[in-house]
Amino acid sequence: MEKINLAEKYAQFSDHWNPRIIASLNGQEVRIAKIKGDFVWHHHEHEDELFWVQKGVLNIEFRDKTVTLHPGEMIVVPRGIEHRPVAPEEVELLLFEPSSTVNTGDESPNDFTKSDIERI
Amino acid sequence: MEKINLAEKYAQFSDHWNPRIIASLNGQEVRIAKIKGDFVWHHHEHEDELFWVQKGVLNIEFRDKTVTLHPGEMIVVPRGIEHRPVAPEEVELLLFEPSSTVNTGDESPNDFTKSDIERI
Repeated sequence: MEKINLAEKYAQFSDHWNPRIIASLNGQEVRIAKIKGDFVWHHHEHEDELFWVQKGVLNIEFRDKTVTLHPGEMIVVPRGIEHRPVAPEEVELLLFEPSSTVNTGDESPNDFTKSDIERI
Repeated sequence: MEKINLAEKYAQFSDHWNPRIIASLNGQEVRIAKIKGDFVWHHHEHEDELFWVQKGVLNIEFRDKTVTLHPGEMIVVPRGIEHRPVAPEEVELLLFEPSSTVNTGDESPNDFTKSDIERI
């Protein structure tokens, strides 16, 4: 039962689109990632997903609109909703989601898919 | 499906020890609160609880140690573990926990207990 310092966790890695688990509770996980560029369109059949920007500017594209998140802003993407994160410059992102959540959703695995997420 | 700006949410209230719900997902809630002073000793039988300090300095007292959280630091208090938040000066706190979580835990309701949490 130790405290978790977010800046120290982000300092431990530099690769993009490779989330790390920093906390687990109630079947959910707090994950962090550094991202840059365009992700793939996907959805999660059974998981709602919270995106919270810690640094940088993130566009979450939906089929009918785009929501732009700055630091201190978050959004909940409900299960079933197609979305695509796009980060023109590097973003430090934090996610709250069930531990079952696959980053690329329920589509077939692709080059972005991370099935064995490291805990830091 | 709108974005949530944390600073705007904190600006909507000023009372202490009265959490607000700012997001719901997967049976969990993101709650925020302003707190100052000593809370009561309590535990949650069935819920793990994440405390994340956004502003100020928070001591989480346990029976055998105290953990001090600064902005950007969080801790997961596992179910069953007695704890007491103490904020010498005002703290802006964010919590991630199941929607079933009562702020004062499974002890008898007291003056701090908030059973009907406002959504903002």
